[in-house]
Amino acid sequence: MMKPKNDSGGRAPRHGEGGPDMDLISQITRIAQVKIPVTDLAASVEWYRRLLGLRLWVEIVEDGVVRGAGLMDPHDRFNLSLRHRSVCASEPDLRGFDVVAFTPQSRAALHRLAEHCDRLRIAHSGVQETPGGALLDVPDPDGTVLRFYDFTQPTGGFTGVEFRDGRHVGFYDTSRLPASRAADGA
Amino acid sequence: MMKPKNDSGGRAPRHGEGGPDMDLISQITRIAQVKIPVTDLAASVEWYRRLLGLRLWVEIVEDGVVRGAGLMDPHDRFNLSLRHRSVCASEPDLRGFDVVAFTPQSRAALHRLAEHCDRLRIAHSGVQETPGGALLDVPDPDGTVLRFYDFTQPTGGFTGVEFRDGRHVGFYDTSRLPASRAADGA
Repeated sequence: MMKPKNDSGGRAPRHGEGGPDMDLISQITRIAQVKIPVTDLAASVEWYRRLLGLRLWVEIVEDGVVRGAGLMDPHDRFNLSLRHRSVCASEPDLRGFDVVAFTPQSRAALHRLAEHCDRLRIAHSGVQETPGGALLDVPDPDGTVLRFYDFTQPTGGFTGVEFRDGRHVGFYDTSRLPASRAADGA
Repeated sequence: MMKPKNDSGGRAPRHGEGGPDMDLISQITRIAQVKIPVTDLAASVEWYRRLLGLRLWVEIVEDGVVRGAGLMDPHDRFNLSLRHRSVCASEPDLRGFDVVAFTPQSRAALHRLAEHCDRLRIAHSGVQETPGGALLDVPDPDGTVLRFYDFTQPTGGFTGVEFRDGRHVGFYDTSRLPASRAADGA
């Protein structure tokens, strides 16, 4: 089989061109859910509902105690699952960690969301400019960071982004990751 | 303003009916990214590419070291961001924790993915039946669980799910969470 010269501008895939991998991913339609460990379930349910207008649609009771809650986007596109941290595997601490990023329709939506946070007295990062576009970070009551990212760069090709001392200093166009031996064994 | 009797079958929202909350969430279009802490970035990049046919599209170098990689779905619907755990805020440990759930097109896709894992000698849960539908859990090289969930229950209304000693024992239809005082202060 001839290798394509290029997979939409990036480096060529090392295996499975047009094969089972591509085919399988086509059968995965979206990220439906992100699960977030919380320490006060009732308070976090209310916080997420107020911030994003989500709807309580699922609740999980284990041995008589409410341990989890599913919050559904009113348009059924995604949900956030909150689970009491004490019963999460590894009891993950996500303070300061931006585990999830949502796409807003526009940069203006970021500003509206920041104003909404202000009205609710919810702390946020303010709208930040980055090499990829504007973003807004909103830590939840446990400090887990929800990122809203108006990413405006192309998603084709490959982009290396270089920082030094926390400042963006440039871009590069060839991966600097070592090629894994595992890649050739597939 | 008149309150609607019901928001698509669930309990009525406590505030903001049809107001700014609903409007804001309409301006958030999707979960675009989940960020996953990893201990061996190069190995995990290869693992995720092989499992899901993702494409390396972004790389982050900080002070001369590759610290992060963005893996894009070939159809540009979502991406997974891998970041070296030692430089993640709180250095989260997600072993055994199903931080993200993807929706497959069908239950058959779960079986195909399980077979794909077998070919790659990647351990997985096997396709499990649950009250909500069939799911497949695949732990990544650090033990972080990727869930693929063919959820077949309605997403409208409210469903309480009760477990005892790890077994599903029934459903209920009214939230058992205490109403938060915060909900009335919005």
